Amino acid sequence: MARWEPDSRMRLVRAAIDLFAEQGYDDTTVAEIAARAGLTKATFFRQFRDKREVLFAGQDAHSSLLAEGVAAAPEGATPLELVAAALDRVTGSFVEEQRGFGARLRAVVASHDELVERDAFKRAGLAAALRAALRERGIADTPAGLAADLGVEAFHRAYARWSDGTGAESFGGLARAELDALHAAAVALT
Amino acid sequence: MARWEPDSRMRLVRAAIDLFAEQGYDDTTVAEIAARAGLTKATFFRQFRDKREVLFAGQDAHSSLLAEGVAAAPEGATPLELVAAALDRVTGSFVEEQRGFGARLRAVVASHDELVERDAFKRAGLAAALRAALRERGIADTPAGLAADLGVEAFHRAYARWSDGTGAESFGGLARAELDALHAAAVALT
Repeated sequence: MARWEPDSRMRLVRAAIDLFAEQGYDDTTVAEIAARAGLTKATFFRQFRDKREVLFAGQDAHSSLLAEGVAAAPEGATPLELVAAALDRVTGSFVEEQRGFGARLRAVVASHDELVERDAFKRAGLAAALRAALRERGIADTPAGLAADLGVEAFHRAYARWSDGTGAESFGGLARAELDALHAAAVALT
Repeated sequence: MARWEPDSRMRLVRAAIDLFAEQGYDDTTVAEIAARAGLTKATFFRQFRDKREVLFAGQDAHSSLLAEGVAAAPEGATPLELVAAALDRVTGSFVEEQRGFGARLRAVVASHDELVERDAFKRAGLAAALRAALRERGIADTPAGLAADLGVEAFHRAYARWSDGTGAESFGGLARAELDALHAAAVALT
């Protein structure tokens, strides 16, 4: 497991999630988040546009990692194998501390329509990035879109299982298992 | 083909889409939309919260129609057959005039990030409604979610083809063909 190296971005995320859980999202200010993290408001605003963005931190990085995983996969890989490689890459970037965020993060997002809407948009952005990477590998548009959607769904399901659990199962292993299960379920729809 | 019966809601939608296309979304006011439709601002606000909502008119009705189609499908229908029944129901509600809106509607939405975000959210809402209807029919959560996503994608693809075309192909026939093609593509991902 990678040792977690504290940095201002992760400290701000952790402080925000703690405060949102303790006193509610609406009642938490950027000043409080910065203070809890032992940082200044100016440091906060160098990392995030507003407190909402803290909840979606890492989404740009996740898009890049998914794309990198696809690009690095072996020649001749099927769409599903390319997506599995993307999931290996993105899940490998998570550190143990992020496991503890999952449930509280989902609870905060679910409590506000505006955040649910933002979350849906960000998910669509992840899927679009993965789809574009698959297109770069010569996958036609329709299978690329379907495989990307399955991949993003597998990623979120696996994150929920990993962050709710305390077991030894790796995030990456869970993501591959979810991807296979989703594909099998799709095949069986007829 | 159903004869189109003018009503204030459809008149407002048509006026709004015309004005958005002619002078841009940002430069069009609710007062102008109402005037073009020969109606008052008060009538507008009885139908829509703001001009943005005009672009997503019908989404609630579409959710209900999808659910009704699923509920009315025969016993023993597979998830994909239930979705096909849902598509029959929702596409059957469209009138010829709505065919002409498609391209302009998509162009307006694509021109504003805020509208793209809203559209993604509304799509997720349609999928959630279809998924819930499938759950009511005893379909397990994972296949219900997958079938719902395929159904909503087929609906949007078929609407694009139907509204871009002038041919005799029915919207319903296009939607069933898209659904089958999407499923075949999903099967072939391995």
